Amino acid sequence: MTNANSRSNAIYFEDVLPGERLVSSWYALTEDDIVSFASKWDPLPIHVDAKAAQRSQFGSLTASGAHLLAIKQKLLHDFGFRDSVICSFGLDEIRYKAPGKPGNKFRIVLTWLDQRPSSSIPNAGIARHKAELVNQDEVIVMTVLDTILMKKRIPIA
Amino acid sequence: MTNANSRSNAIYFEDVLPGERLVSSWYALTEDDIVSFASKWDPLPIHVDAKAAQRSQFGSLTASGAHLLAIKQKLLHDFGFRDSVICSFGLDEIRYKAPGKPGNKFRIVLTWLDQRPSSSIPNAGIARHKAELVNQDEVIVMTVLDTILMKKRIPIA
Repeated sequence: MTNANSRSNAIYFEDVLPGERLVSSWYALTEDDIVSFASKWDPLPIHVDAKAAQRSQFGSLTASGAHLLAIKQKLLHDFGFRDSVICSFGLDEIRYKAPGKPGNKFRIVLTWLDQRPSSSIPNAGIARHKAELVNQDEVIVMTVLDTILMKKRIPIA
Repeated sequence: MTNANSRSNAIYFEDVLPGERLVSSWYALTEDDIVSFASKWDPLPIHVDAKAAQRSQFGSLTASGAHLLAIKQKLLHDFGFRDSVICSFGLDEIRYKAPGKPGNKFRIVLTWLDQRPSSSIPNAGIARHKAELVNQDEVIVMTVLDTILMKKRIPIA
């Protein structure tokens, strides 16, 4: 696996190598973070009410799925897509496999699945990856497939 | 379609009627909201840099996909899942169909797809819905399928 910090911090379409895996830095999840995000976007008791969450099947507060997706998105920035991503067409097969709890740390393991040049947009291509959000115990918390439209490194003439 | 405000604000598994559509209230998207969310979770130029965004194919700032998912999640709370949702198993077929721009308003149209009792968890069931995030011009901005584990209304004996 390639550590994000060990390579040039700019990935363009030509840099997509199906099968290659990239590993991000860590994100530390706190109780305040869980409650703050969910209070605004997903105020279920299991995300915002510590006492209610203790009585749930998870035994503690858990992060909203929308929060885990936001964390995934933040960690993707480790990989240097900043100047090459045009847009995402969409996400598939998001699976919540384990809860995200206060004190957890997460990183993502990205695996490139496939790529093809765009047939309609010059100097761009479409690349798919799988992102696994993994915690400090190497438990996979969430998986996502993402299909993105990326610029080629070659500037448009 | 049933307006969220015209029905009892508590939906349990028994209330899932495949084919029924529910419509949420509106969420108003501002430039500050786009930049604030994306600065933390997805700081691409098209989400945080108004000048760079003007030069993009969209011609203005656009909301991060993670932000649209968070807005979708917030609007779902109109439908009274608060005490019945146990967890989401995952999301499928998220499609970003149009950009979310400053000044847009969004609501969701939820359509129940199917439901079945859980074979392993007493007094719970699994329900799937499609959520369409629709803007003030009735343009569909994003679609999502969600599979959730819900409590039945009958209390566990």
